[in-house]
Amino acid sequence: MSVIEVADPADERLADYVRLRDVNLRKSLEAEHGLFMAEGEKVIRRALAAGFEPRSLLLTERRRDALNDVLDRVDAPLYVVGEPVAEALVGFDLHRGALASFRRRPLPGVEEVLRGARRVVVLEDIVDHTNVGAIFRSAAGLGIDAILLAPRCADPLYRRSVKVSMGAVFTQPYARLDDWHGGLEAVRALGFRLLALTPGAGSVPLADALEDAGPDRPIALLLGTEGDGLSSRWLESADAAVRIPMAGSDIDSFNVTAAAAIACYELVRTAP
Amino acid sequence: MSVIEVADPADERLADYVRLRDVNLRKSLEAEHGLFMAEGEKVIRRALAAGFEPRSLLLTERRRDALNDVLDRVDAPLYVVGEPVAEALVGFDLHRGALASFRRRPLPGVEEVLRGARRVVVLEDIVDHTNVGAIFRSAAGLGIDAILLAPRCADPLYRRSVKVSMGAVFTQPYARLDDWHGGLEAVRALGFRLLALTPGAGSVPLADALEDAGPDRPIALLLGTEGDGLSSRWLESADAAVRIPMAGSDIDSFNVTAAAAIACYELVRTAP
Ligand SMILES: C[S@@+](CC[C@H](N)C(=O)[O-])C[C@H]1O[C@@H](n2cnc3c(N)ncnc32)[C@H](O)[C@@H]1O
Ligand SMILES: C[S@@+](CC[C@H](N)C(=O)[O-])C[C@H]1O[C@@H](n2cnc3c(N)ncnc32)[C@H](O)[C@@H]1O
Repeated sequence: MSVIEVADPADERLADYVRLRDVNLRKSLEAEHGLFMAEGEKVIRRALAAGFEPRSLLLTERRRDALNDVLDRVDAPLYVVGEPVAEALVGFDLHRGALASFRRRPLPGVEEVLRGARRVVVLEDIVDHTNVGAIFRSAAGLGIDAILLAPRCADPLYRRSVKVSMGAVFTQPYARLDDWHGGLEAVRALGFRLLALTPGAGSVPLADALEDAGPDRPIALLLGTEGDGLSSRWLESADAAVRIPMAGSDIDSFNVTAAAAIACYELVRTAP
Repeated sequence: MSVIEVADPADERLADYVRLRDVNLRKSLEAEHGLFMAEGEKVIRRALAAGFEPRSLLLTERRRDALNDVLDRVDAPLYVVGEPVAEALVGFDLHRGALASFRRRPLPGVEEVLRGARRVVVLEDIVDHTNVGAIFRSAAGLGIDAILLAPRCADPLYRRSVKVSMGAVFTQPYARLDDWHGGLEAVRALGFRLLALTPGAGSVPLADALEDAGPDRPIALLLGTEGDGLSSRWLESADAAVRIPMAGSDIDSFNVTAAAAIACYELVRTAP
């Protein structure tokens, strides 16, 4: 590990860290270089512990010793910058004072992730990185075996998801379906019962559907997008439409993070 | 309802709408004038339906007819502005095209809100408006009777909370404790069993604690802040520390929105 002080925010070596809030720029930059960002000491430690390889680390002067205990195991440069350089570089006050750029690893395939799994969550087109991160955190915390993502679901390794997940995205097994239209058939073919979570009329209470399925049947819970919910294609592809019962208030659905937490809790409770 | 076209973002009549993303400015402006903001047609309709009085409405030209059906019942000016004026005024692209400024109403007192209530949530110092809004949405959706807020808990009527709650903050009964240190005693004195939600060791599973309490005992679930969780004062004031059981992964807590959703679900499930 070499420690390098950098004084110029335009220094080429800091290119991984530019304009962290510019979502479009970051998406293409991160895709092109196959990298993702971890922010804050705790999350950086978790990425290292999960075996991800850093491209580099960046600490502000005030936090320069924060990661000393892990540095001998890290084979990448550590850049130390002043707070104003950090702010000019990333585009906001980096009060946590610690960033790292990690190499992505190829995702496993759907079959690989589902091998041996019994409790699975499938996210259709969740677009909000906060929701994706929070769902990973809940799923990992409750012991969900795997998460599958529709082709257009937001990236769990985007900085905001990583942060909100508290690093759950590093350890929670997940894969991406490459086929939105037919992808669920592959899941069913592996023996899963597909339960489409939807607040709409005509769905059965989740607890009843789980009881009907029995404790041994592998279950996949399908969750839909923030605005319109599950597509009609996915609703039709499911074995049953299920709901989390709601009080008769004028609130007609939960936010997807809350719905996912409740549904995973109920799944784990009834099929421990 | 008078419809008024305004071309100058600095026009005094638009003062309620300035710099909506400037949290500090907005907090003092909204406190001073006793107002709150609703964004988007659906949420504005819900505020009106809940009987809140608008100070004014603001629509962009493209959306100028969006609220026509309710305008005859509204006794406040409707300002119509071009998209660039809206953006210069509020400080971002107002793609939803609809804002309204409403008069706050005095909050009811704690005793009033707890009268007849059996299932209550108490939020200590949740600072994130997204979490507060999502918790209100879950609580309202599940049929929680009332929410109590510690003195420093974030404001449910702040724009971001309102939006994330989908308007649940308008109908869900809530009150603010004026005493952090002793406020829980007043709740206990009304017959509530206080269950402190904490992932820490030494807590009992929530489901067991609810079973012990029996279905008729009024329950208050205490939830803690995003970073450090419940204060030791509140943990000590509670009748029991309870946890949502977690898998043995390296994730050591849920985010508070997820924890609240699960806890409210379990409460409603076991004491319908
Ligand atoms: C905000 S909701 C979408 C609401 C959308 N209007 C609908 O009708 O599906 C986002 C997702 O959360 C899940 N969800 C929310 N509330 C639910 C409930 N009461 N029961 C089952 N799923 C729910 C569903 O998977 C939904 O697609
Ligand atoms: C992010 S957590 C705070 C974590 C904090 N380190 C702690 O130990 O409490 C925010 C709040 O969510 C609730 N919470 C999160 N996970 C929980 C669990 N497994 N059991 C009970 N409550 C939980 C608690 O009320 C907590 O105060």
